[in-house]
Amino acid sequence: MSAESRFLTLLRLLANDPAAQGLQDDVAILPVGDSRLILTSDTMVEGVHYLPTDPPADIGWKLAAVNLSDLAAKGARPLGCLLNYALSGDENWDAAFLEGLGDALERHAMPLLGGDTVAMPAGAPRSYSLTAIGEAGGAVPTRSGAQPGDRLYITGFVGDAGIGLTIARDDPSASGPLVDAYRRPRPRLTEGALIAPHASAMMDVSDGLLIDASRMAKASRVAITIDHIPLSPAMEQVRGGSTATQIAAARAGDDYELLFTLPPDGRLPVRAIPIGHVAAGVGLTLMIDGAMMPLPERLGWEH
Amino acid sequence: MSAESRFLTLLRLLANDPAAQGLQDDVAILPVGDSRLILTSDTMVEGVHYLPTDPPADIGWKLAAVNLSDLAAKGARPLGCLLNYALSGDENWDAAFLEGLGDALERHAMPLLGGDTVAMPAGAPRSYSLTAIGEAGGAVPTRSGAQPGDRLYITGFVGDAGIGLTIARDDPSASGPLVDAYRRPRPRLTEGALIAPHASAMMDVSDGLLIDASRMAKASRVAITIDHIPLSPAMEQVRGGSTATQIAAARAGDDYELLFTLPPDGRLPVRAIPIGHVAAGVGLTLMIDGAMMPLPERLGWEH
Repeated sequence: MSAESRFLTLLRLLANDPAAQGLQDDVAILPVGDSRLILTSDTMVEGVHYLPTDPPADIGWKLAAVNLSDLAAKGARPLGCLLNYALSGDENWDAAFLEGLGDALERHAMPLLGGDTVAMPAGAPRSYSLTAIGEAGGAVPTRSGAQPGDRLYITGFVGDAGIGLTIARDDPSASGPLVDAYRRPRPRLTEGALIAPHASAMMDVSDGLLIDASRMAKASRVAITIDHIPLSPAMEQVRGGSTATQIAAARAGDDYELLFTLPPDGRLPVRAIPIGHVAAGVGLTLMIDGAMMPLPERLGWEH
Repeated sequence: MSAESRFLTLLRLLANDPAAQGLQDDVAILPVGDSRLILTSDTMVEGVHYLPTDPPADIGWKLAAVNLSDLAAKGARPLGCLLNYALSGDENWDAAFLEGLGDALERHAMPLLGGDTVAMPAGAPRSYSLTAIGEAGGAVPTRSGAQPGDRLYITGFVGDAGIGLTIARDDPSASGPLVDAYRRPRPRLTEGALIAPHASAMMDVSDGLLIDASRMAKASRVAITIDHIPLSPAMEQVRGGSTATQIAAARAGDDYELLFTLPPDGRLPVRAIPIGHVAAGVGLTLMIDGAMMPLPERLGWEH
């Protein structure tokens, strides 16, 4: 067990309120009066969650986007957020970060309500946290509700952000749709709100399709089969559509599409791509072009 | 203007929602249904907000306490919190931190609901954030409501934590009430809830009595006179009660007592110490033993 796993075990002992959901989901669900608040918080660390060469405006955008994506996966409406910011020592860098953060917040109607700004000792890696608060509109899908017979969908392509990261690492000045997918992910708030009333389970794909689908299978105590890995035209142009490319795309993180299940007779409330189905049993099965594939040892980004 | 001041100016432009209160208070006040949420977040950085030699359990306690103190100053009831934790690389240290955090949360009925745990690059200074959510019981006093004629009170002694910090810096193994005041501050949640319906203004004293009282005067557009600096018996035993000791105590931070104003005919709802009064005008006046004192150049802890 890793140090982080051990720490999370201790955290779960502490987080014994029902609203914490045993820390098994990406969010907490806190009832307040007649409302249910959706709470989430993400930290981004230089060199761990982004490249030191990424433009600061994109880092600011992404910090907002990853939190908004957690709200999207619950069909929640953003109410506001708090920012914990460590000054970088470079005023222009900080201003550009805020500009990108502000763009993402404004685009998704998420007010900035407060937080804390600190100065770090010289030479410390940059790190930032955002805590987002949303309000559930009605049903709040979790990752544990998938049922045998359900169909599995995703709101968009996978793997673009992973290729974008590789491109940006090789050439920090590169641009285009794949780099954009990595640096400026689009949280699926509208889609999430439309899907939530109908989905038996939903989560955002932050660590990779295979690992996140396997988490959904585990939490729901069902077997999930993925029989299609949707690649974007931009990806196919750069990498083709080979089996290896498909598997790499399904292991790549940072896509922030929504993965969800619908009952077999359920109407699809938004445009989404059917990628598999749910059955009784356990675990994840991957089919490519009708053939069962051995799962890669590492399914995606492990924290 | 410092880099932090410039950054805060940009932040205020972004935080234009009424709930953010122009980032002029320690908290945001967010209406949700019939409730008003009180939101606050504080970050603690090793070597900046605490000594690297402080026991990890005390650092965890303090992170919870400083956030709870912000809720106390609004008379709010804790609903829950989210923790952003950077693993230290030392599992025992992390476990002790959580133990102290958990003690403070349990003592004050604040559930841990979620957050994010990250690994920092080796050698990075430790830093942690906690975001606390409370619910206002009724009136929510701000720091801007003090009126001419009001009387000024504080819920306890000042300066103990400042001396405790000095003692702990000289001898990390030192103990006693002054070191405890620095390492294990007690958020005044019960007092805050009882005072809130009656106070014209309230805030917690985190940066020092003089600087926080001057902020209250500025926000309320009034003149505040402090005519008594309450010293603890422990402080008087160590430092005596000289004018210099009193001024040092009034400039020291980390006390987390509540500073509040009551109308002249208001009943004092808790035991508290009268320390001055409010008049028309601007600024802060300090009287010691009936004599007006020149204000020290640095009033307290400046961020």
